Amino acid sequence: MLTQAVPFRLAGTGSCLPRQKIPSAHLDHLIGRDAGWTEETFHIATRHWADGDETSSSLGAEAARGALADAGWEADSLDVVIGACGVMEQPIPGTAALIHRRLGLGSSGIPAFDVNATCLSFLAALQTALFGFLAGRWRRALVVSADIASAALDFTAPEASAIFGDGAAAVALEADGPHRLAALRFATYSDGADACRLEAGGTRLRPHLDLEGFLARSRFAMDSRNTFKITARYFPDFLSSLLADAGVAAHSIHTVVPHQASAPALEHLKRSFPGGHDKTVDIFRHHGNQIATSLPTALHHAYRTGRLEPGSLSLLIGSSAGISLGGAVIRW
Amino acid sequence: MLTQAVPFRLAGTGSCLPRQKIPSAHLDHLIGRDAGWTEETFHIATRHWADGDETSSSLGAEAARGALADAGWEADSLDVVIGACGVMEQPIPGTAALIHRRLGLGSSGIPAFDVNATCLSFLAALQTALFGFLAGRWRRALVVSADIASAALDFTAPEASAIFGDGAAAVALEADGPHRLAALRFATYSDGADACRLEAGGTRLRPHLDLEGFLARSRFAMDSRNTFKITARYFPDFLSSLLADAGVAAHSIHTVVPHQASAPALEHLKRSFPGGHDKTVDIFRHHGNQIATSLPTALHHAYRTGRLEPGSLSLLIGSSAGISLGGAVIRW
Repeated sequence: MLTQAVPFRLAGTGSCLPRQKIPSAHLDHLIGRDAGWTEETFHIATRHWADGDETSSSLGAEAARGALADAGWEADSLDVVIGACGVMEQPIPGTAALIHRRLGLGSSGIPAFDVNATCLSFLAALQTALFGFLAGRWRRALVVSADIASAALDFTAPEASAIFGDGAAAVALEADGPHRLAALRFATYSDGADACRLEAGGTRLRPHLDLEGFLARSRFAMDSRNTFKITARYFPDFLSSLLADAGVAAHSIHTVVPHQASAPALEHLKRSFPGGHDKTVDIFRHHGNQIATSLPTALHHAYRTGRLEPGSLSLLIGSSAGISLGGAVIRW
Repeated sequence: MLTQAVPFRLAGTGSCLPRQKIPSAHLDHLIGRDAGWTEETFHIATRHWADGDETSSSLGAEAARGALADAGWEADSLDVVIGACGVMEQPIPGTAALIHRRLGLGSSGIPAFDVNATCLSFLAALQTALFGFLAGRWRRALVVSADIASAALDFTAPEASAIFGDGAAAVALEADGPHRLAALRFATYSDGADACRLEAGGTRLRPHLDLEGFLARSRFAMDSRNTFKITARYFPDFLSSLLADAGVAAHSIHTVVPHQASAPALEHLKRSFPGGHDKTVDIFRHHGNQIATSLPTALHHAYRTGRLEPGSLSLLIGSSAGISLGGAVIRW
């Protein structure tokens, strides 16, 4: 539990979608199903996929420019750039440094680093930024999520591929503003670490030693049933504890800003709240699950459409590979 | 600059080296040079390389157990596990969740996430942990670095391969202890983002679309001259600013705990301090550059050999791909 609510200001938001909009009909074909099957099964109409020239850092930089413009800040007024991607553009150096360069900060000395908690990376990075404000370390932070899920999808497993979309989102944050982080919680249940995984692309699987094994594990795999089981087991207590930490009741939450895990997950969440269907930001139908980018994209939509009214309470909430649960309560 | 020195306690440290100790003579052979060339050129005698059954998370968990035992803590007394690797074991989920599981925390709900700043990941994670203490978010944190550089070395480029070793190191940290983080600084100069890089293993290069291109970029590459040039240009001012932030003079630093970038880098650092040769923890000759693991391994050595005397000042310092500089001043 936080000793005190952390003051800050959400000064601006931005988002970016790749050019290619992919209708579900395109996936019916890829997956080898009848026309309409993908949309009907997963409740997703379109998602965007990055083209060859669109990278995590190019999309991330575009979203970042949007957030900076919205805040009215020059990039060189930042004190830190925090990358919050689900999967990095490359192992070395990290995506934050690449975005930093694209923002023209190459000789600025403004620090850049990355935080990773898969689909909850944005929340983990938000936590890092706000705690840095408390410590007096930074006054202005840019948090950027960017993910290209389409780089590693396995269309022989529709439930682990059909719902994913690419994109980027960014927020400009300032210390000591009118907004308050009232509570923030994370919980990891690594018994479920194998439920959602992408194994190739780190130090364990080595393409030079076993190329076949490497390629066989180079696409995202998800055991949906186990993921749902573990998440559902822990979610109710997690949510109660988070609200208790913030000292607020469920009915007083005005806007629920969730990770866009899947249509059933969003439906389940909506039913957990009085008036949940109206309160929940649901952009799944035209974005899909954008890994770490979903949560800040939903926040961007809520912010830009005026849903974050002064004094009102928002719940940021989600789950991720790990398996982790994460959430925050913010008073605007 | 920090508004105040951050109180904490370094409660324990641990480290782990893979079983295989590789003498430089072995590299003379790999690189195709005369016997003795590698040791003479790079001032490294041995380094350890992971065998097939040794992964980032297995080494990391072993180092973590050492730190927990040293602190006298049970794993389930932790409030957070922060991964601080240079390169992750796999993209999803991150190394922290895998270490969490190996520590028997699978159903604990203790949060686990990763922080990445390549060779400076440990410093970035230390910052995250200590700021979390300030916010009241955690009381006990485990920070674990684990790297298997040997997974992606290119022996046709000796300066980018001969000096790297594998390993893991961990620290157990507690809030509100007698130790003080007096200053912490990071600076990123992404003009040098291409100077040290490993490109394959993220969302940009896709083995399914261009296997040859993927494999061609699947080993670490370093432009040593440019790396040195950029680092050397910014280092003196960076160090002065860091010491000024802490309000201490260079001569009052008792122990310098550096990233073990290379023998020349360590030599350069030693010459930057009055008495630098005696003050600097230099474990390069038998560890090499262990990416993010170097700094906490050096800290472990300093701590376990009694060099961190109560009241004395230490400087933690290093550089990383990005290119970033990072440092901290701690009063024990």
